[in-house]
Amino acid sequence: MARIVMKFGGTSMAGIERIRNVASRVKREVEAGNEVAVVVSAMAGETDRLVGFCREASPLHDPREYDVVVAAGEQVTSGLLAITLQAMGVPARSWLGWQLPIHTSDAHSSARILGMETGPVGEAMTRGEVAVIPGFQGLADGNRVTTLGRGGSDTSAVAVAAALKAERCDIYTDVDGVYTTDPRIVPRARKLERVTYEEMLELASVGAKVLQTRSVELAMKEKVRVQVLSSFNDTPGTFVVDEDEVVEQQLITGVAYNRNEAKITVVEVPDRPGSVGALFGPLAEANVNVDMIVQNIAHDTGNTDVTFTVPRTDLPKSLDVLDKAKADIGYSRLITDDNVAKISVVGVGMRSHAGVAQTMFQALGSRGINIQAITTSEIKVSVLIAEEYTELAVRVLHTAYGLDAA
Amino acid sequence: MARIVMKFGGTSMAGIERIRNVASRVKREVEAGNEVAVVVSAMAGETDRLVGFCREASPLHDPREYDVVVAAGEQVTSGLLAITLQAMGVPARSWLGWQLPIHTSDAHSSARILGMETGPVGEAMTRGEVAVIPGFQGLADGNRVTTLGRGGSDTSAVAVAAALKAERCDIYTDVDGVYTTDPRIVPRARKLERVTYEEMLELASVGAKVLQTRSVELAMKEKVRVQVLSSFNDTPGTFVVDEDEVVEQQLITGVAYNRNEAKITVVEVPDRPGSVGALFGPLAEANVNVDMIVQNIAHDTGNTDVTFTVPRTDLPKSLDVLDKAKADIGYSRLITDDNVAKISVVGVGMRSHAGVAQTMFQALGSRGINIQAITTSEIKVSVLIAEEYTELAVRVLHTAYGLDAA
Repeated sequence: MARIVMKFGGTSMAGIERIRNVASRVKREVEAGNEVAVVVSAMAGETDRLVGFCREASPLHDPREYDVVVAAGEQVTSGLLAITLQAMGVPARSWLGWQLPIHTSDAHSSARILGMETGPVGEAMTRGEVAVIPGFQGLADGNRVTTLGRGGSDTSAVAVAAALKAERCDIYTDVDGVYTTDPRIVPRARKLERVTYEEMLELASVGAKVLQTRSVELAMKEKVRVQVLSSFNDTPGTFVVDEDEVVEQQLITGVAYNRNEAKITVVEVPDRPGSVGALFGPLAEANVNVDMIVQNIAHDTGNTDVTFTVPRTDLPKSLDVLDKAKADIGYSRLITDDNVAKISVVGVGMRSHAGVAQTMFQALGSRGINIQAITTSEIKVSVLIAEEYTELAVRVLHTAYGLDAA
Repeated sequence: MARIVMKFGGTSMAGIERIRNVASRVKREVEAGNEVAVVVSAMAGETDRLVGFCREASPLHDPREYDVVVAAGEQVTSGLLAITLQAMGVPARSWLGWQLPIHTSDAHSSARILGMETGPVGEAMTRGEVAVIPGFQGLADGNRVTTLGRGGSDTSAVAVAAALKAERCDIYTDVDGVYTTDPRIVPRARKLERVTYEEMLELASVGAKVLQTRSVELAMKEKVRVQVLSSFNDTPGTFVVDEDEVVEQQLITGVAYNRNEAKITVVEVPDRPGSVGALFGPLAEANVNVDMIVQNIAHDTGNTDVTFTVPRTDLPKSLDVLDKAKADIGYSRLITDDNVAKISVVGVGMRSHAGVAQTMFQALGSRGINIQAITTSEIKVSVLIAEEYTELAVRVLHTAYGLDAA
């Protein structure tokens, strides 16, 4: 007998028919002798509907009241799942964020979970009652409703699993696990049995949107074993676990791509102390997430060119910010390119192996793909290339690192 | 400066455009120097949608979880009205049922309000902040969400007004007040300036569905001055007040009708002690609300006929109950008629005037309308007639009691 947390997203909760499917899966785990807590999202589309109301009421809405409005979506599905479980003969009750409570910071609409009280809910689970917990919501000091930001239900599930000391946290989604790369591009992509927290984080950061990044960070911090699996079939999923649990390490675990970046080159920036601060400071203040940065050596003129990438949606804002700061920075002009893609290879194995980047450069070079920028982390190498080569680059690298299924 | 409670129903809250209209009315009261609490219903149709989900999930749903689901509707409109008020420059915040809290019994889905804590919300109002309070919801012992039953928002508003010692409770609806009778039947019906609690209760019980009965009972008990008025125009409404406030009493205040009854005659019931108990006991157990009862004197046979009315929707259930109890009761057969209507005249003035019933019988008799049953209370006379005479009877009585507008 084990204690487990199961989390179902909006697609799995969209309508009573699907909620029955969810309840059947929960019942199966209960009948296998497990103590179960279920974390649920709002019905697909419901959060958008509620957010739409808030925006229509006022573009600059009070985030405390926004939280009151949007938290209602998960409240509804929690009650409905409890009713459905009971109708199947499974004892169940809903525990709303304020009832448990799940304590959060008071950063309304993007609160962070601080802790959760487990006394009464733990006792109920020990008595054999399934605890249905709305994801996404919590309670701040002052007894106000908070929400964790979009996608926050994954984080709720991991936090609940940590607080309840669950053996694992099963996250049911519309994909059946984490793959070596996007199977739509590489049909021979393989589903991974296990992936480490660090790899999952790097994969998420470069576009593999299986789990919300914060949920993986929290799982890593709290050492919660997470399984990603499909709510529509019965195949085993992918475990996201500590490095110790991954016995046979691949050099590279996966290849990811991200087409949501744009490149900006700032031409002829004075090569003197403080100039980079003058460049990136205003962007940070404007909440632009600068990703890859390349600075060349200075020209004879005492100037240098700086190239970096920003999220494509932030390109207009970034140019606006840089334009206003032109005098401070002292550059001559800007060159932009949003036909770029970032290709990344990720794997904890590269820590102990040299030559990973070299394999990448050679493989891409052999197909005539030019590399415009490079960044590396301990377990990731990313390159920026022209967007039109995206699929080719992913396929070439998937083969070059021996990831193709037999 | 006064403290007032304003209550808006689902039609007034259906969509942001209408919520803006509500916010404008609230703003006007704030600018007039009033401290305002607003009690809101869910958007029109939303509660039906949520109830539908619960029924689809299970016909026999746990009322505790049902309450969690349906309370979400008022939560959403509360947050949205607070946002809208703020956007108009009016300080406002939502206070959910569990935040205040509004204490209720644990009769989930039809809970009764026991009391409300007014400390923090009262202080906020004194600071000039509008308190937006979801109707219909409360909190039971054990920290569980409760709801008051359909139409409970009127009751919430009156309870809030009582707790906050408000000068009055304005209930905004889609009619602009209480009329001497249905203006669709009698174009010369007049809007009443004032009506007493007792009259309002009797009018509500016989079909004038302006206010929920429980809210009037509570207003009477707590001496809350209620005003019924339209949220779509600016004309003064009708005050529902204590008898002392009604200076110039009419003999009759209003004429009401109710087509939702059905008549059952139980033929040849043994005329002995206990037989009436054997008849009405099982109906009470089946939650059938028996209204008018007529028992004739016994026949020579030692049997009597008993006639009574039940809500038309309960007719099949009633017949089923009586069929099962046939041996116990010992009657010979049942005669039913659902083509009946109940016509009532209501007025506190009739306490001190004889002849009110006689006027009624003569007026109806003069038009050849046969009376099938009669009940009276201290301030009401009701008769049962064939349904086809409903409009004629209402018009005749409206004229007979001098209620027609000049």
